[in-house]
Amino acid sequence: MDKSSEKEFLVKFGQNLRRLRKQKGYTQEELANELDIEISQISRIERGVINTSVSLVKSIVDCLQVKANELFD
Amino acid sequence: MDKSSEKEFLVKFGQNLRRLRKQKGYTQEELANELDIEISQISRIERGVINTSVSLVKSIVDCLQVKANELFD
Repeated sequence: MDKSSEKEFLVKFGQNLRRLRKQKGYTQEELANELDIEISQISRIERGVINTSVSLVKSIVDCLQVKANELFD
Repeated sequence: MDKSSEKEFLVKFGQNLRRLRKQKGYTQEELANELDIEISQISRIERGVINTSVSLVKSIVDCLQVKANELFD
Protein backbone atom coordinates (compact mmCIF):
# COMPACT_ATOMS: atom_id res chain seq x y z
CA MET A 1 0.00 0.00 0.00
CA ASP A 2 1.60 3.27 -1.06
CA LYS A 3 1.69 6.26 1.27
CA SER A 4 -1.31 8.09 -0.23
CA SER A 5 -3.53 4.96 -0.20
CA GLU A 6 -2.43 4.33 3.38
CA LYS A 7 -3.38 7.89 4.35
CA GLU A 8 -6.74 7.55 2.59
CA PHE A 9 -7.43 4.27 4.39
CA LEU A 10 -6.43 5.62 7.82
CA VAL A 11 -8.75 8.63 7.38
CA LYS A 12 -11.62 6.31 6.36
CA PHE A 13 -10.85 3.95 9.25
CA GLY A 14 -10.92 6.91 11.64
CA GLN A 15 -14.24 8.13 10.28
CA ASN A 16 -15.68 4.63 10.71
CA LEU A 17 -14.46 4.59 14.32
CA ARG A 18 -15.98 8.01 15.06
CA ARG A 19 -19.34 7.00 13.53
CA LEU A 20 -19.46 3.68 15.43
CA ARG A 21 -18.31 5.28 18.71
CA LYS A 22 -21.11 7.87 18.49
CA GLN A 23 -23.63 5.23 17.43
CA LYS A 24 -22.78 3.30 20.59
CA GLY A 25 -23.09 6.46 22.70
CA TYR A 26 -19.45 6.86 23.79
CA THR A 27 -17.57 10.13 24.05
CA GLN A 28 -13.86 10.03 23.15
CA GLU A 29 -13.11 10.31 26.86
CA GLU A 30 -15.36 7.39 27.81
CA LEU A 31 -13.86 5.14 25.11
CA ALA A 32 -10.33 6.18 26.09
CA ASN A 33 -11.06 5.33 29.74
CA GLU A 34 -12.53 1.93 28.78
CA LEU A 35 -9.43 1.15 26.72
CA ASP A 36 -7.07 2.68 29.29
CA ILE A 37 -5.42 4.93 26.71
CA GLU A 38 -5.13 8.70 26.27
CA ILE A 39 -8.02 10.67 24.74
CA SER A 40 -5.48 12.17 22.32
CA GLN A 41 -4.79 8.68 20.95
CA ILE A 42 -8.50 8.17 20.14
CA SER A 43 -8.58 11.62 18.56
CA ARG A 44 -5.52 10.91 16.40
CA ILE A 45 -6.90 7.55 15.26
CA GLU A 46 -10.22 9.21 14.34
CA ARG A 47 -8.38 11.93 12.39
CA GLY A 48 -6.36 9.28 10.55
CA VAL A 49 -3.01 10.62 11.74
CA ILE A 50 -1.76 7.47 13.43
CA ASN A 51 -1.50 3.90 12.13
CA THR A 52 -2.70 2.09 15.21
CA SER A 53 -1.97 -1.48 16.26
CA VAL A 54 -4.02 -4.57 15.56
CA SER A 55 -4.38 -5.35 19.30
CA LEU A 56 -5.89 -1.90 19.94
CA VAL A 57 -8.31 -2.53 17.07
CA LYS A 58 -9.33 -5.76 18.83
CA SER A 59 -9.89 -3.84 22.10
CA ILE A 60 -12.02 -1.27 20.26
CA VAL A 61 -14.06 -3.99 18.48
CA ASP A 62 -14.71 -5.76 21.80
CA CYS A 63 -15.48 -2.55 23.72
CA LEU A 64 -17.90 -1.13 21.13
CA GLN A 65 -19.27 -4.61 20.37
CA VAL A 66 -18.95 -4.12 16.64
CA LYS A 67 -17.56 -6.34 13.89
CA ALA A 68 -14.02 -5.66 12.58
CA ASN A 69 -15.51 -5.36 9.07
CA GLU A 70 -17.39 -2.24 10.18
CA LEU A 71 -14.08 -0.49 10.81
CA PHE A 72 -12.27 -1.79 7.73
CA ASP A 73 -14.96 -1.53 5.02
CA MET B 1 -6.09 -5.21 27.04
CA ASP B 2 -3.46 -6.51 29.43
CA LYS B 3 -0.21 -7.97 28.15
CA SER B 4 -1.21 -11.64 28.41
CA SER B 5 -4.54 -11.08 26.62
CA GLU B 6 -2.71 -9.10 23.95
CA LYS B 7 -0.24 -11.95 23.47
CA GLU B 8 -3.09 -14.48 23.29
CA PHE B 9 -4.88 -12.35 20.70
CA LEU B 10 -1.77 -11.81 18.56
CA VAL B 11 -1.08 -15.57 18.48
CA LYS B 12 -4.72 -16.24 17.48
CA PHE B 13 -4.58 -13.47 14.85
CA GLY B 14 -1.39 -15.02 13.45
CA GLN B 15 -2.94 -18.47 13.29
CA ASN B 16 -5.94 -17.01 11.44
CA LEU B 17 -3.59 -15.33 8.96
CA ARG B 18 -1.63 -18.55 8.37
CA ARG B 19 -4.84 -20.56 7.84
CA LEU B 20 -6.33 -17.98 5.42
CA ARG B 21 -3.03 -17.53 3.54
CA LYS B 22 -2.78 -21.31 2.97
CA GLN B 23 -6.48 -21.53 2.07
CA LYS B 24 -5.87 -18.93 -0.64
CA GLY B 25 -2.81 -20.82 -1.87
CA TYR B 26 -0.09 -18.28 -0.96
CA THR B 27 3.32 -19.11 0.42
CA GLN B 28 4.76 -16.64 2.95
CA GLU B 29 7.15 -15.47 0.22
CA GLU B 30 4.35 -14.87 -2.30
CA LEU B 31 2.28 -12.89 0.21
CA ALA B 32 5.33 -10.89 1.30
CA ASN B 33 6.09 -10.04 -2.34
CA GLU B 34 2.48 -8.99 -2.99
CA LEU B 35 2.56 -6.74 0.08
CA ASP B 36 6.11 -5.52 -0.63
CA ILE B 37 7.33 -6.47 2.84
CA GLU B 38 9.92 -8.90 4.20
CA ILE B 39 9.07 -12.61 4.53
CA SER B 40 10.28 -12.36 8.13
CA GLN B 41 7.54 -9.83 8.86
CA ILE B 42 4.85 -12.28 7.67
CA SER B 43 6.48 -15.01 9.73
CA ARG B 44 6.55 -12.85 12.87
CA ILE B 45 2.90 -11.82 12.43
CA GLU B 46 1.89 -15.47 11.99
CA ARG B 47 3.82 -16.44 15.14
CA GLY B 48 2.16 -13.64 17.08
CA VAL B 49 5.42 -11.92 17.98
CA ILE B 50 4.66 -8.54 16.44
CA ASN B 51 1.68 -6.23 16.87
CA THR B 52 1.26 -5.17 13.28
CA SER B 53 -0.38 -2.02 11.97
CA VAL B 54 -3.97 -1.51 10.89
CA SER B 55 -2.90 -0.43 7.38
CA LEU B 56 -0.96 -3.67 6.86
CA VAL B 57 -4.05 -5.59 8.00
CA LYS B 58 -6.01 -3.73 5.31
CA SER B 59 -3.41 -4.70 2.68
CA ILE B 60 -3.60 -8.36 3.80
CA VAL B 61 -7.42 -8.34 3.73
CA ASP B 62 -7.42 -6.86 0.21
CA CYS B 63 -4.65 -9.16 -1.08
CA LEU B 64 -6.16 -12.39 0.28
CA GLN B 65 -9.69 -11.16 -0.50
CA VAL B 66 -10.97 -12.09 2.94
CA LYS B 67 -13.12 -10.21 5.44
CA ALA B 68 -11.41 -8.48 8.39
CA ASN B 69 -13.65 -10.50 10.72
CA GLU B 70 -11.93 -13.69 9.58
CA LEU B 71 -8.65 -12.41 11.00
CA PHE B 72 -10.08 -10.94 14.21
CA ASP B 73 -12.61 -13.61 15.27
